[in-house]
Amino acid sequence: MQYVLGLDFGGTKLAAGLIDSSGRLIEFRRCPTDPSAGPAGAISAVQRLVDSFTTRVRPAGVGISFGGPIDQARTRTLLSHHGPGWEEYPLVEHIGRLWPGPVVMENDANAAALGEFCFGAGRGYRNLLYVTVSTGIGGGVIINGELYRGSRGLSGEIGHTIVVPSGPLCPCGKQGCLEAVASGPSIARHYAGRSGLDPTTVTAEEVFQQAERGNPLARETLEWSINLLGIGLANAINLLDPDVVIIGGGVSRAGDRLFAPLRAAVAAAAAPSPPGAVPILPAALGDAVGVLGAAALVLSTSAARQQSAQTGQDPSDP
Amino acid sequence: MQYVLGLDFGGTKLAAGLIDSSGRLIEFRRCPTDPSAGPAGAISAVQRLVDSFTTRVRPAGVGISFGGPIDQARTRTLLSHHGPGWEEYPLVEHIGRLWPGPVVMENDANAAALGEFCFGAGRGYRNLLYVTVSTGIGGGVIINGELYRGSRGLSGEIGHTIVVPSGPLCPCGKQGCLEAVASGPSIARHYAGRSGLDPTTVTAEEVFQQAERGNPLARETLEWSINLLGIGLANAINLLDPDVVIIGGGVSRAGDRLFAPLRAAVAAAAAPSPPGAVPILPAALGDAVGVLGAAALVLSTSAARQQSAQTGQDPSDP
Repeated sequence: MQYVLGLDFGGTKLAAGLIDSSGRLIEFRRCPTDPSAGPAGAISAVQRLVDSFTTRVRPAGVGISFGGPIDQARTRTLLSHHGPGWEEYPLVEHIGRLWPGPVVMENDANAAALGEFCFGAGRGYRNLLYVTVSTGIGGGVIINGELYRGSRGLSGEIGHTIVVPSGPLCPCGKQGCLEAVASGPSIARHYAGRSGLDPTTVTAEEVFQQAERGNPLARETLEWSINLLGIGLANAINLLDPDVVIIGGGVSRAGDRLFAPLRAAVAAAAAPSPPGAVPILPAALGDAVGVLGAAALVLSTSAARQQSAQTGQDPSDP
Repeated sequence: MQYVLGLDFGGTKLAAGLIDSSGRLIEFRRCPTDPSAGPAGAISAVQRLVDSFTTRVRPAGVGISFGGPIDQARTRTLLSHHGPGWEEYPLVEHIGRLWPGPVVMENDANAAALGEFCFGAGRGYRNLLYVTVSTGIGGGVIINGELYRGSRGLSGEIGHTIVVPSGPLCPCGKQGCLEAVASGPSIARHYAGRSGLDPTTVTAEEVFQQAERGNPLARETLEWSINLLGIGLANAINLLDPDVVIIGGGVSRAGDRLFAPLRAAVAAAAAPSPPGAVPILPAALGDAVGVLGAAALVLSTSAARQQSAQTGQDPSDP
């Protein structure tokens, strides 16, 4: 049996997993990120996570999910929004020194899309849109069974599609981005604004709880945010016509309180496409999506290599 | 030299062209569509166009660009918005009786995208979004050098992405679709509404002319429509990250009066992507885009077949 290591360098959590070639998670460890420790500190922390595994095997390769932009060649990180030191940092090279063998890296949304496609809610589909609704809103696209990165590695940026022209200010500097109206902090901020509360004291989960208790401001906030999230997803469906849309990230943990109104909003906004024709599914991999997606990167690459060796085809062909 | 026939069944015009394998247009004829004549009348009219060609060759195949939805197998038309009789009509079969050999069909936006990719403004790119801004707004997507049809043949429906929630009513029944704010008739209608004119007496070209003459209502209309068109394109860029966006259709004939403000609107709305990084280019094939796109369908299929015969690869692989 072949094993690969999946590493998840997130803004708030670091995680490491040992995954077999069928996508089974053998070991999984997490710890909080210390942003001030920089890349070297993060690598040390991840190494300690792997050292704490009870299974001792030499991984056939390492996949990295990175929570921030990476360079086109996918060897260097460009930026972390959570701490300094990640500019032009050769993370793939440093990880390769710790674990000899192939090392591959993707941004977290692309890795999660591939993880759900290979091992999660997206298994068996061919064209897939993955969207994470969390502190921010990001996305990844699978086309014809392969991760589609776009021409500049910038595909799937659904969080910065504009759904309300001249709408609320987004952290990116534009107005009315999907992220500015439907991310977890945006839901909390809009509820706090309506309620006269300090926005730093409210979470999106509390807004869902208040809405369940009948709080009309919480209900209005969620109706507004979920309707606009539905418009953002419907716009992406009308462009990409995927088999399925998979929603992950912290806000997706609201479950049916999110998914029931979201499916109705998508069906209304995606017309004239057949209503409800594209399933909107919750992600299946939970907190392990990063390490499983990272592992999928390695396994899909090595599977392509093996197929190439057998058939003589270029592994970059599907 | 191999020749193929390109047929364009549009809502207002029918066209036929004879194209050589390098994409050169040898013959081109057009006539108005008579919607009341139905499919049989349209086929007869197209046959007369081909009979009037001065070049007499037996085409190696026929491509069809159809101005309306077609079935997934791309053999039947499902609907024309301009006249009756096109429901479940086996157009490919009927054309195959007139010109024996391979016959392939696509909807007009997909055919135009492929035409511009193979022979027009999109040559040399790999990932491309084509958008036609005309009576309606449609689009076609090229991914990794191939037409991407989506899972249900519904990809590229940028005209029905929503850019103004609760905005103007669209012919599709939704509110705030891109088509409802930036198509030719929408531009004319919004100007007429602002000016107290009968909307049936105004064209988009007249609004551009009025704006050039300094008419403030025409300028406001265009600023509003072009800004929203820029948001629609920027949203698609943020999802698809194409090499290039190509704009065709009647409204694109406005030239720099459209493209200069449109590029600025896209750059503003597509951030945080590098501003101006994705070129927004006018289509190059003009009125012949339908027949050239139809021809490209045949040529790309037969090129794939020839490559397959030579290498033993599946032609569905890129």
